Amino acid sequence: MKILVLHGPNLNLLGTREPEIYGKTTMADIDATAGAEGQKLGLEEVRCFHSNHEGGLIDALHEARSWADGVVFNPGGYTHTSIALRDAISSIGLPVVEVHLSNIHAREEFRHKSLTAAACVGIIGGFGWRSYLLGLRALVEWLRERESSAR
Amino acid sequence: MKILVLHGPNLNLLGTREPEIYGKTTMADIDATAGAEGQKLGLEEVRCFHSNHEGGLIDALHEARSWADGVVFNPGGYTHTSIALRDAISSIGLPVVEVHLSNIHAREEFRHKSLTAAACVGIIGGFGWRSYLLGLRALVEWLRERESSAR
Amino acid sequence: MKILVLHGPNLNLLGTREPEIYGKTTMADIDATAGAEGQKLGLEEVRCFHSNHEGGLIDALHEARSWADGVVFNPGGYTHTSIALRDAISSIGLPVVEVHLSNIHAREEFRHKSLTAAACVGIIGGFGWRSYLLGLRALVEWLRERESSAR
Amino acid sequence: MKILVLHGPNLNLLGTREPEIYGKTTMADIDATAGAEGQKLGLEEVRCFHSNHEGGLIDALHEARSWADGVVFNPGGYTHTSIALRDAISSIGLPVVEVHLSNIHAREEFRHKSLTAAACVGIIGGFGWRSYLLGLRALVEWLRERESSAR
Amino acid sequence: MKILVLHGPNLNLLGTREPEIYGKTTMADIDATAGAEGQKLGLEEVRCFHSNHEGGLIDALHEARSWADGVVFNPGGYTHTSIALRDAISSIGLPVVEVHLSNIHAREEFRHKSLTAAACVGIIGGFGWRSYLLGLRALVEWLRERESSAR
Amino acid sequence: MKILVLHGPNLNLLGTREPEIYGKTTMADIDATAGAEGQKLGLEEVRCFHSNHEGGLIDALHEARSWADGVVFNPGGYTHTSIALRDAISSIGLPVVEVHLSNIHAREEFRHKSLTAAACVGIIGGFGWRSYLLGLRALVEWLRERESSAR
Amino acid sequence: MKILVLHGPNLNLLGTREPEIYGKTTMADIDATAGAEGQKLGLEEVRCFHSNHEGGLIDALHEARSWADGVVFNPGGYTHTSIALRDAISSIGLPVVEVHLSNIHAREEFRHKSLTAAACVGIIGGFGWRSYLLGLRALVEWLRERESSAR
Amino acid sequence: MKILVLHGPNLNLLGTREPEIYGKTTMADIDATAGAEGQKLGLEEVRCFHSNHEGGLIDALHEARSWADGVVFNPGGYTHTSIALRDAISSIGLPVVEVHLSNIHAREEFRHKSLTAAACVGIIGGFGWRSYLLGLRALVEWLRERESSAR
Amino acid sequence: MKILVLHGPNLNLLGTREPEIYGKTTMADIDATAGAEGQKLGLEEVRCFHSNHEGGLIDALHEARSWADGVVFNPGGYTHTSIALRDAISSIGLPVVEVHLSNIHAREEFRHKSLTAAACVGIIGGFGWRSYLLGLRALVEWLRERESSAR
Amino acid sequence: MKILVLHGPNLNLLGTREPEIYGKTTMADIDATAGAEGQKLGLEEVRCFHSNHEGGLIDALHEARSWADGVVFNPGGYTHTSIALRDAISSIGLPVVEVHLSNIHAREEFRHKSLTAAACVGIIGGFGWRSYLLGLRALVEWLRERESSAR
Amino acid sequence: MKILVLHGPNLNLLGTREPEIYGKTTMADIDATAGAEGQKLGLEEVRCFHSNHEGGLIDALHEARSWADGVVFNPGGYTHTSIALRDAISSIGLPVVEVHLSNIHAREEFRHKSLTAAACVGIIGGFGWRSYLLGLRALVEWLRERESSAR
Amino acid sequence: MKILVLHGPNLNLLGTREPEIYGKTTMADIDATAGAEGQKLGLEEVRCFHSNHEGGLIDALHEARSWADGVVFNPGGYTHTSIALRDAISSIGLPVVEVHLSNIHAREEFRHKSLTAAACVGIIGGFGWRSYLLGLRALVEWLRERESSAR
Repeated sequence: MKILVLHGPNLNLLGTREPEIYGKTTMADIDATAGAEGQKLGLEEVRCFHSNHEGGLIDALHEARSWADGVVFNPGGYTHTSIALRDAISSIGLPVVEVHLSNIHAREEFRHKSLTAAACVGIIGGFGWRSYLLGLRALVEWLRERESSAR
Repeated sequence: MKILVLHGPNLNLLGTREPEIYGKTTMADIDATAGAEGQKLGLEEVRCFHSNHEGGLIDALHEARSWADGVVFNPGGYTHTSIALRDAISSIGLPVVEVHLSNIHAREEFRHKSLTAAACVGIIGGFGWRSYLLGLRALVEWLRERESSAR
Repeated sequence: MKILVLHGPNLNLLGTREPEIYGKTTMADIDATAGAEGQKLGLEEVRCFHSNHEGGLIDALHEARSWADGVVFNPGGYTHTSIALRDAISSIGLPVVEVHLSNIHAREEFRHKSLTAAACVGIIGGFGWRSYLLGLRALVEWLRERESSAR
Repeated sequence: MKILVLHGPNLNLLGTREPEIYGKTTMADIDATAGAEGQKLGLEEVRCFHSNHEGGLIDALHEARSWADGVVFNPGGYTHTSIALRDAISSIGLPVVEVHLSNIHAREEFRHKSLTAAACVGIIGGFGWRSYLLGLRALVEWLRERESSAR
Repeated sequence: MKILVLHGPNLNLLGTREPEIYGKTTMADIDATAGAEGQKLGLEEVRCFHSNHEGGLIDALHEARSWADGVVFNPGGYTHTSIALRDAISSIGLPVVEVHLSNIHAREEFRHKSLTAAACVGIIGGFGWRSYLLGLRALVEWLRERESSAR
Repeated sequence: MKILVLHGPNLNLLGTREPEIYGKTTMADIDATAGAEGQKLGLEEVRCFHSNHEGGLIDALHEARSWADGVVFNPGGYTHTSIALRDAISSIGLPVVEVHLSNIHAREEFRHKSLTAAACVGIIGGFGWRSYLLGLRALVEWLRERESSAR
Repeated sequence: MKILVLHGPNLNLLGTREPEIYGKTTMADIDATAGAEGQKLGLEEVRCFHSNHEGGLIDALHEARSWADGVVFNPGGYTHTSIALRDAISSIGLPVVEVHLSNIHAREEFRHKSLTAAACVGIIGGFGWRSYLLGLRALVEWLRERESSAR
Repeated sequence: MKILVLHGPNLNLLGTREPEIYGKTTMADIDATAGAEGQKLGLEEVRCFHSNHEGGLIDALHEARSWADGVVFNPGGYTHTSIALRDAISSIGLPVVEVHLSNIHAREEFRHKSLTAAACVGIIGGFGWRSYLLGLRALVEWLRERESSAR
Repeated sequence: MKILVLHGPNLNLLGTREPEIYGKTTMADIDATAGAEGQKLGLEEVRCFHSNHEGGLIDALHEARSWADGVVFNPGGYTHTSIALRDAISSIGLPVVEVHLSNIHAREEFRHKSLTAAACVGIIGGFGWRSYLLGLRALVEWLRERESSAR
Repeated sequence: MKILVLHGPNLNLLGTREPEIYGKTTMADIDATAGAEGQKLGLEEVRCFHSNHEGGLIDALHEARSWADGVVFNPGGYTHTSIALRDAISSIGLPVVEVHLSNIHAREEFRHKSLTAAACVGIIGGFGWRSYLLGLRALVEWLRERESSAR
Repeated sequence: MKILVLHGPNLNLLGTREPEIYGKTTMADIDATAGAEGQKLGLEEVRCFHSNHEGGLIDALHEARSWADGVVFNPGGYTHTSIALRDAISSIGLPVVEVHLSNIHAREEFRHKSLTAAACVGIIGGFGWRSYLLGLRALVEWLRERESSAR
Repeated sequence: MKILVLHGPNLNLLGTREPEIYGKTTMADIDATAGAEGQKLGLEEVRCFHSNHEGGLIDALHEARSWADGVVFNPGGYTHTSIALRDAISSIGLPVVEVHLSNIHAREEFRHKSLTAAACVGIIGGFGWRSYLLGLRALVEWLRERESSAR
């Protein structure tokens, strides 16, 4: 089982900016922790990728079709506006779990709605960097359940 | 550490109705699994409660102040309309994690917005009965992190 | 064939207040007339229930599953705001006919829309206490048609 | 007592198209059943008329002033857009009962609101062709009650 | 100089219904008074026409191109909903003055906006049957001013 | 019979600016023409007043109670925003006719709605400076009709 | 003269939570102060009641009909959403004064509008626990004025 | 293969009015060109019909069921307001291609949305009279593809 | 302690117009009663001022900084539209209590919202001229509480 | 004459995913067919380009200025959100025809509106891959008409 | 070259209130600095004026026609509500530059939109008192560019 | 002191397209003038960068953290839609001044609102290429003021 952990715009600045909202953990820290968690869960690979480009994220989702079993995705600011990313998630036929560091419902009005989540399996937010780990576990359990019910 | 698992309206029918949306697991099954998970996580108690009454849920949240350390809460249909429940969550001063069986962003428009989530630590939805377990673990980790940082 | 006639908030005051809008007939009168009509229609039972509590109405709908074949329901002021009641109607798997004393389309803007009706078989409103009788007959005919087509 | 049964746009295709929504009964069947019901109810005449023209329906309502005591009216697609029909109903001074085959609250958003119903006595919808019969009976009872209270 | 006075839906009932809003004057009275006023103003012809049909009104506007110099038009309930009538007014290249018996800004919200007026020279409303006379005079003065400035 | 002609903000610039929209006639020209028309109509007095101040217009309306029988009022830009002016019109108990040089329905969206008109007898717009004359005549006829019906 | 002081959801936590918004006074303090004030005002009884249940508040309003002359009511979070409570206030025929601890116009957008106030005599908010006393005095004066004008 | 070309309101004035928006081609020119194009495409018949009446267009669509294989339809101003026409298109079970002379997305806001298009196969607009020819070809190819895939 | 009682637009007509909404008490009566109440409350001065001008009210608020301890303000029709008055209230640093004669939540939709109240201490409305007295007492108690807590 | 055929986000997956909505034809198939059609139409070149990047599409439009005479463009999910693409189309001064595989008016509400189309010559949608061919022909005829009228 | 610097409501309090938002500079300081800057820029006169009255600002704009070449205007709270001021700016035919001390886009929602700016040359905001200087320079450069291009 | 001048989408076409809106100055001209102005202002460096990619602009803002003291930014069409850019501006901790060539408040409705400006120091628009120079000076003065107040 192979998982893509995908980071959207501005997440590369994590840990260096606005720690009162997002904490001090960096994106590299998250990737390391996700890799460790993946080993504990017995995964073959946890590959991490980041892009600030909407198109770059779409490409990464498309490419995931050829190697990954699922995606843990934080779409950042594109969460609320990108129909193209939503279509990409729908198109690739892989389960995607949307994660957010902060609780989007407790921030500005325009962040309450997630366009991309509608194409995902589920959504987890508000737990800082732990949202990624919770998303990873949720995705793996979802995949194993599907596998066992397919037998 | 003691946790309240709180079920909102119609969740008592779980497993007997519309299994294509909500699965076959009953509310009693969830309560049992949550109890077992609580033991694995070393919790003192996982107490489960259900009410179809908005006021009953407010009462339960109020009472939790005297015994619980946190709440895993599925507000059901009240998620989208209840300012009174939102105020109750704000008032009790306990961390609350909002959970949903289904992915609210993928259902009817009027279910996309959560009024109650703004007063919660975070939100988890779309993983069926597993949303409760993910919420329980997320809450326990959140509490332990706060505890260790308080030392 | 057994039918539940369910009255929502404030209907217990019927006939004693604002007769220029709702008429002089009391809730007890409606229950008596519904019972008599039920006998004419050959029903086994017409059981009437009232609650001012949203949760009380949800409970009554849930309980109806164990004994009733259908429900005639006037959700009163909850018609326009209660997603929880709408979910309850969807959950119980019984045909529900929504009735209103007044014509909701001829009153204030916020009463024009019915959230609960979307989960019902149909809606009847504007005929005062007769709306209940029309609803009862409509429900019985609907049930008999389903019965005969199931043979 | 004489009643006009008035059919709006597209109802002439009833029974030949989209039976999964509207059933197999044709407009002629409804007219025959309404006539028979009228005889049972002791009416002098049940006259049926159909037009796909908004203006044709207005004309029919105007003419009804010279011979009818009330109208059972299915405005079809004009229900949601016609202020002119609403004004016509207000202008003729006859009681009008609005009927719909389907439950408008359970269909597309733009069908939830009825502009015409605000000028009617009441509204009945969701019972297929039976909505007409329920409307006919409701109207006759309404007229008889007015008559008896006028004495 | 020849003028068309055009009456929209339900105006044929004028004077016989709801006199508290629209007065006792009938449509025939208005036509007679408009004719007399036309003679005083030295007009060649004041031709009056009424239709309850949106299409009938469009046809009348189109035909006016071959004989009339301008139109006094009361679009009734179509005022607020008809893009087709607005397009017709724009298309015929004749000056049209919109008139209303009542003051649309003092009635229901949905009557405040006029779609058709945007294609007209001006609008006059609130003066009962006198709105037509005021409209007729305004139109004639407008035409004479254009004529004199064209010399 | 005495009439107040009241000009709102920016009308003092009339005839000197943007003649393609408002024409070349000045406010003084309108006042002169209104005076002449008043004489033709047999009025005792036509008094003209202008203010760019919302409060100045309210004051003028209040003072009109002590001497005038009615008001022809062009509220200019305050038409669409002033609840205070609307209240003033309602408070003074004199008939007010709202006039506009241009056709407000054919300009920007935010000019389509008139808050003040709801408190007036009627509205006339789109005929340039002639709107004032039409308003004056309409008001006089309205007053004479009321007078004769009061006898 | 007997008065009901009615507290809506979450007010039982008053004084123990979020004192920076609501102050340190508890609900019991308010009830004691209201009782003392009642004695000063010469009232027969000031009875205080609290419920977190929407239905419980409706029941209390209904019961007040048999003993109270008026109600001072703080509907809490239900202020902005409950049509059923608004109907209850309209139905009981007693004067109700709505009070709020905080100034609803200075808080979140969704708290600016009061559905229940439209059925009340008046509204007082922003003065902390003193809003109750002001409401009590206002209600008593209102009742005494009605009494004296009825003689 | 037989095709109905259906023209909505005001299209009969085409070529004689506002040529800067709609060009100089008349409706008769379009009908002639469509006929010629039909011959090139090997069609049995291209029948053209025009009505300014909403109901007349509904009638024409209904009648097309008995002889035509598809419809090229320009609903004109009814495009944006007619639910009844949308229902008619849905009801007749024939493929309909909606065409517009101008690009509706580049005109007034109220012309951006098409209610009728939702029931059509596709939409073509902005190419003047050529939109009809493009629509005719698109419809014929659509019908031939269906035919060939049905074999 | 010195208090400004400030009356907004149209309040000078109070008692002479529309007594069914606002009562027979005049503005002078209110000022006299407020003065008497001020003496009872031991105030040094209650100064009353009225202006129909938005700018005049802003000026009065600004001047109050040099002599008054607080303001009782009825902004009349400016309540719902004036950002400039709201800014003035925020700017002067004095506590302001907003009062209304009528209950704004029970009138037209456009009167439900108060822009100015957001900058005030609290709001009182619906008690006719007594709203001023209630506001005066509330303001004095507020000032005394602040004074005592500042010691 | 040279034409750019430009494909927006996710179109590279065409034919491999969700064929029930978009058909089995791949993007390469469309490009081949467009090339063949171009030869039939006597074009010098039909160059095809795809990008999932909003910026990549803007670049391609910009570059087209140096070699192409027009563009057939399917903006995919960017259709409804991209002001930057709309500006790009306006900026390049080339005629652009917008094409869509599906009928945007028959899909989700958020796909009904096209921001980009307002800057295009016209729009064609609902005919699957044939929409491209129709767009290509429409564009070529548009260019030839302009050419001939320029002579 | 002569310039009017025009201050709207509440700016006279500048520097004495809420310095955390608006700074400590007073209106007199700004006027002095603007005068000095005017000398540096070689202007004949920089005349400063303030009014809290909407009408007073309109008057000042009108008078500027007789002596000034342009206006630097801070409309304060009227920015977002005054159509009359917008009309005044359009009417006077002088270039107006709108300035704001704070960044309106970073404050409350109702301050994001500027009605007056649409009639201005440009807008500058967020630089405290320096916004005036920037506006003055921008206006002078604009005027000199127009002058030189007019030669 | 080093400044980044950042150009968003389509600005590379400046001066070659739609000069009636944006003038004839090219982006290179602006960069040269900004460089010259920077020298006059004693800046160490004015570095100019352009990208049509939302992600490219985000990258440039991120990189500016390592070398620049502030940014003059024209976000072009992304101004109104990009939450990701707004987040980037917030994240980098550098002062950003938003500039626009045209006056956004005087163009289409969807250009009135700036999402990005809320994260900026201030906004300047409407002065063509001079907006950049004004922005540069404003930024430098802002930086120098901060510097001097930090000492």
